Amino acid sequence: MTEPCLLVLDADPLPRLDRLSGRARIVHADENTLAEHLPAADVLLVWDFLSDAVREAWPGGGPRPRWVHTPSAGVDRLLPELSASPDTVITNARGVFDQPIAEYVAGLTLAMAKDFRGSWELQRQRRWRHRETKRVGGTRGVVVGSGPIGRAVGRTLKALGVSVELVGRTERTGDPDFGKVHAGDALHGLLGDADWVVCVAPLTEESRGMFDAAAFARMKPGAHFINVGRGQHVVEKDLKRALVEHRIAGAALDVFADEPLPSESELWDVPGLLVSPHMSGDTIGWRDDLAEQFLDNFDRWEAGEPLLNVVDKDLGYVPSTS
Amino acid sequence: MTEPCLLVLDADPLPRLDRLSGRARIVHADENTLAEHLPAADVLLVWDFLSDAVREAWPGGGPRPRWVHTPSAGVDRLLPELSASPDTVITNARGVFDQPIAEYVAGLTLAMAKDFRGSWELQRQRRWRHRETKRVGGTRGVVVGSGPIGRAVGRTLKALGVSVELVGRTERTGDPDFGKVHAGDALHGLLGDADWVVCVAPLTEESRGMFDAAAFARMKPGAHFINVGRGQHVVEKDLKRALVEHRIAGAALDVFADEPLPSESELWDVPGLLVSPHMSGDTIGWRDDLAEQFLDNFDRWEAGEPLLNVVDKDLGYVPSTS
Repeated sequence: MTEPCLLVLDADPLPRLDRLSGRARIVHADENTLAEHLPAADVLLVWDFLSDAVREAWPGGGPRPRWVHTPSAGVDRLLPELSASPDTVITNARGVFDQPIAEYVAGLTLAMAKDFRGSWELQRQRRWRHRETKRVGGTRGVVVGSGPIGRAVGRTLKALGVSVELVGRTERTGDPDFGKVHAGDALHGLLGDADWVVCVAPLTEESRGMFDAAAFARMKPGAHFINVGRGQHVVEKDLKRALVEHRIAGAALDVFADEPLPSESELWDVPGLLVSPHMSGDTIGWRDDLAEQFLDNFDRWEAGEPLLNVVDKDLGYVPSTS
Repeated sequence: MTEPCLLVLDADPLPRLDRLSGRARIVHADENTLAEHLPAADVLLVWDFLSDAVREAWPGGGPRPRWVHTPSAGVDRLLPELSASPDTVITNARGVFDQPIAEYVAGLTLAMAKDFRGSWELQRQRRWRHRETKRVGGTRGVVVGSGPIGRAVGRTLKALGVSVELVGRTERTGDPDFGKVHAGDALHGLLGDADWVVCVAPLTEESRGMFDAAAFARMKPGAHFINVGRGQHVVEKDLKRALVEHRIAGAALDVFADEPLPSESELWDVPGLLVSPHMSGDTIGWRDDLAEQFLDNFDRWEAGEPLLNVVDKDLGYVPSTS
């Protein structure tokens, strides 16, 4: 029996691959060699999940992998090209990033409320300047994204005493943690009450650019905005203007339309804007967790069982089973 | 009927004092005039609670206030002098700071786990450098101080998934949130397992200097230390050495033996040390809350009812009623 061909688009070394010894023929590719190897591959592991190479190299017709796995939550770097191949299944890293990103967002929320950056800047200047800070308990938050990450973010903010409204694609009621989940078109009506607006949505045609001048105009002067979704959710020049003109109190971006953020970008020193390098979900050991998750799914694939975390290519994410 | 004399040691203006109009003769003093006014005062409000003037001016014998209120959690700036006046009751601001300080500590915990200071320093340099961060969920914390603030800190860390051991003066079991509360002499035995060590204890003769070289030597190389209690809980040179020699991973101090921290202090630039200017409990509106709390107690005093939040002068804090 011929071993299946596993094609790996590499970035960093992939841990734990020895588990497939004797079970798969493993071929490594980079962005330049990906196209030539794709037709012969049964499975593609997009280990370099920040690359757009798969979309660019995808063979529209003829032989191609039947299973593509991306060790990321978002699959926007594979669509729409792979949607045109109905016999190819895409799976993602659903679950791995939930708690890390929830902690990151809770940390940013508290850090902005307590003005930690201000304190550490004063520390650098050896200046003692007492200020009053904000309470987080008793405030209101809107979390955009009702998948597992958005729900984990919402639950963690709730644990800090924040009253949370969750926004998904479609309205639903009876959510065990949040009661009602709002439809996307309700967002603007919710923004005016929010002290914290968090974007953790998948990037789709509907969500692209949703945080624009009109959205920021709906927010309160005391509101803070946090984006851990995708850079393209935000019209960056509109956010910059909202901060420069003090229409909102502050923002934190972990993701950007252009990554890595170029050193000449004007976003680095917008007043009230905290920048971090797309790392909200990446806790120590995350690559091991991601490799493990793929290998567990490979076991299922080999045994002919249904794969876990299958992306709905029309929606652009893994639909909730509940 | 003569109005009672309320003496106020002022720092900033005291809000809401009009509530006492016609009910008390209000005399304002500063550090220089306090001693001359003290004998005629029925009630002393130490609005400038960071001052040591009361201890210095306290009349050992003869007439003196029968009630002294400090709008702070700690009463260490009044003891031991006031302990020698058994007919003088001390009350404090128990309760006001619980949730703010719990949020501050949770924020510091997450900020250290996610290395926010590192990200914002890189932002200043316009450098994109991805790093892996720590998870907070699943870690272990030790909170020293089992009063309302320590309990609020412990509950908030628990809500973030931290397993928390609480240390008080004496051991007790059956605590609704923490099960067993450990006695102070159990601390060294607990430090070796802790990822987070938080000091939120009242300053007493027993707790002074408790975080010394021996305590830091017990901690793990990955441990972080947070002090929101009093500066005198920490032997600052021992903490500096523990950080410089990488015996622990990091620390955050909101309180210092010498406040305001002098600009020439070597603590400003110890590697891995976050400095903030004694503000962990001071959220917007805190002065209103503190004034309100005093005025509510004044109502009770005027009506001859027992005062709330009476300090046990031997213990140095308000004992828990539970």
